[in-house]
Amino acid sequence: MRLSRYFLPVLKETPNEAQIVSHRLMLRAGLIRQEAAGIYAWLPLGFRVLQKIEQIVREEMNRAGAIEILMPTLQPADLWRETGRYDAYGPEMLRIKDRQDRELVYGPTNEDMVTEIFRAYVHSYKALPLNLYHTQWKFRDEVRPRFGVMRGREFLMKDAYSFDLNKEGARRSYNRMYVAYLRAFSRMGLQTIPMRAETGPIGGDLSHEFIVLAETGESGVFCHKDLLDMPIPGADIDFDSDLEPIVSQRTKLYAATEDVHDQARFEREVPADKRLSARGIEVGQIFYFGTKYSVPMKAVVTGPDGRDVPIEGGSYGIGVSRLAGAIIEASHDDAGIIWPEGVAPFDIALINLKPGDAKVDAACEEIYAKLTAAKKDILYDDRDERAGAKFASMDLIGIPYQIVVGPRGLEKGLVEVKVRATGVKDEVPVESAVARFAKT
Amino acid sequence: MRLSRYFLPVLKETPNEAQIVSHRLMLRAGLIRQEAAGIYAWLPLGFRVLQKIEQIVREEMNRAGAIEILMPTLQPADLWRETGRYDAYGPEMLRIKDRQDRELVYGPTNEDMVTEIFRAYVHSYKALPLNLYHTQWKFRDEVRPRFGVMRGREFLMKDAYSFDLNKEGARRSYNRMYVAYLRAFSRMGLQTIPMRAETGPIGGDLSHEFIVLAETGESGVFCHKDLLDMPIPGADIDFDSDLEPIVSQRTKLYAATEDVHDQARFEREVPADKRLSARGIEVGQIFYFGTKYSVPMKAVVTGPDGRDVPIEGGSYGIGVSRLAGAIIEASHDDAGIIWPEGVAPFDIALINLKPGDAKVDAACEEIYAKLTAAKKDILYDDRDERAGAKFASMDLIGIPYQIVVGPRGLEKGLVEVKVRATGVKDEVPVESAVARFAKT
Repeated sequence: MRLSRYFLPVLKETPNEAQIVSHRLMLRAGLIRQEAAGIYAWLPLGFRVLQKIEQIVREEMNRAGAIEILMPTLQPADLWRETGRYDAYGPEMLRIKDRQDRELVYGPTNEDMVTEIFRAYVHSYKALPLNLYHTQWKFRDEVRPRFGVMRGREFLMKDAYSFDLNKEGARRSYNRMYVAYLRAFSRMGLQTIPMRAETGPIGGDLSHEFIVLAETGESGVFCHKDLLDMPIPGADIDFDSDLEPIVSQRTKLYAATEDVHDQARFEREVPADKRLSARGIEVGQIFYFGTKYSVPMKAVVTGPDGRDVPIEGGSYGIGVSRLAGAIIEASHDDAGIIWPEGVAPFDIALINLKPGDAKVDAACEEIYAKLTAAKKDILYDDRDERAGAKFASMDLIGIPYQIVVGPRGLEKGLVEVKVRATGVKDEVPVESAVARFAKT
Repeated sequence: MRLSRYFLPVLKETPNEAQIVSHRLMLRAGLIRQEAAGIYAWLPLGFRVLQKIEQIVREEMNRAGAIEILMPTLQPADLWRETGRYDAYGPEMLRIKDRQDRELVYGPTNEDMVTEIFRAYVHSYKALPLNLYHTQWKFRDEVRPRFGVMRGREFLMKDAYSFDLNKEGARRSYNRMYVAYLRAFSRMGLQTIPMRAETGPIGGDLSHEFIVLAETGESGVFCHKDLLDMPIPGADIDFDSDLEPIVSQRTKLYAATEDVHDQARFEREVPADKRLSARGIEVGQIFYFGTKYSVPMKAVVTGPDGRDVPIEGGSYGIGVSRLAGAIIEASHDDAGIIWPEGVAPFDIALINLKPGDAKVDAACEEIYAKLTAAKKDILYDDRDERAGAKFASMDLIGIPYQIVVGPRGLEKGLVEVKVRATGVKDEVPVESAVARFAKT
């Protein structure tokens, strides 16, 4: 993409309304624009990041055997009355009347609707286990939306729902999502730790929050340091195998957010040199809730013995739009964002220091063409701008690598390759710069 | 994908509520489920089709130089007051009050919001031309939603918005979208004809509807037959070149829907043997509306002469969810859907006629593994079901090719390859079946 033809509205000033660093950087780097309180438009660069996050989540859900569907944003209120949640949910649920005075809600979550879909079609245990998921916009009418996309009102969530014949099956489904989450967040360049959590309005008796460690995190977290070093299961993991060892290896170690933290237990269970007190951001939560929805909604299957039983359910959420902010909280410096490669809006930034100079233009075009042919996404700054402004913009928007092409280096046949995260710069021949990125 | 692990709720009976063939087939083939009047959930197979359509549109928008963003579903009412459309739009617009009594609308279209985004960032003609698009759920509160996704209330639309300094630029932007639409619909296997249209509530003085020819279409259409045979511009078309010849070659020929049809003119301009009277379905519409939004919203840029001028705008819609229905209307037979290859939910259906038979299972696994390795999406019916039921299901869901593997054929080393559209069957060696699809 040539920047001269792109839409990248970078701001020079830091907007006043932003209280946290990710919100400031998302506004300054032209990722988002607020359209109403807690409601954002995703500008081109931000949209690319959102797509990358969504696609990683999709790939890991599919790998774990979940099946993608897409439920609508608006739901009939009657569905929520069946489970008693229409009254229980409170003012965070946006309630709507259509022109015929029929009551709708803008879905804040989908347990009720997906259970309705399940019961309409599935009647035998032979169709189980089943896990249906979607990635759709949700709405929660927060009293005080803030922190940009970290606590917005209209937000993009991936939510998966598992259906099993019995508790043992539900536990296996839970474990599959637990492992899929470890993989998904790791691919986004995040260090996340699953922490035992309260179940809240979703209900149930087993739940984990996945917490990104970030100095600027919203809540304090306490855990065993060994949780940081555990290997992430590889892409070849067999989701049909017994995943309990991977899960229990983690769950046996202390890990808690401040609202459920027990300092005495922490000190008792964790040796002093293994105690980690840090700050974190929740980016996902998984729940086992058993028959909470299947009993009131009569979602039953006929078991092997011919008797009808309500299914055992779980739900599994990932805050897709929230992650864009959380990743920035975990990965930035004074100059701007540092995107991990897996979610970067472009793979490489190409900076032309002297547009109009025939040699510099030719070298840039060659690099642009060859790396594009190698399926790399390049953002090529071909604008007639000061070098300093170009460097500052590219550092701000945080593309992982920069290739800088100027007349002085080119006289020696060299271009500069800069790693955004470390600031390390190398002067290398044009061909080496191309080869370095074309092969990966 | 193994059907034993998939979620494909095919219905045996034709649902009563469906009045048109695409709605009936979408319900029977398990593509969608109605959740409220005019509001649908997309089940796994339907979701795959929706994604394919969305991706084709995205690729053609990007090729034409449009830039993708994502605006929210909810919009502040005040934005619509600026253009006078809050009162003008009528009861089709879903109006919402949040917990603070702030007025929102569920966006039925986005001219107002995208103009707000544009004016916030763009101040110089040098940033033009600019075309911003998104694919997002919209809502129109139809009095009588019907025909499934063809006239739903919550629907997925791609809408693009062009910004130009003057009328000539706007015309070039209009032509780019005109050509991109020809390409996008063609890739979906559709024969579409652009027809001069009324501009309606979007405003403006130049508009074309893109009409799919289908016997079961919603409205009568009249056009010159030569419009059917014009070549579609190739993927290598240069969108920076003058596209007027491609556009005017078409616009000079008579083409009109029944609401603007002029029979006398039709007979005067079109020789008798070239007159086509048919039925059609609208799947896209493009508008040039000039300064209709830029003047009231003060979306101005500084021109080369230093004076501020309101931008010249256009908008360009494609009914992404509607297309799933329109494609079925245009491509089905008595047995079910016939998906064009570009939008098919799977590339190939693999039917195991005798699961449990070691030889048949092994042949199926080999074909499944090899074609999956060749990046083909296979739906493998590995269920223990009657052959007749398997054939009927696969014909109903309309995957373009079927590979049928049974014990009798395998004794001679043969499997059957069936083309869904023609019904033509070939008995070929396993290796030929694999080679036929692996190379394409």
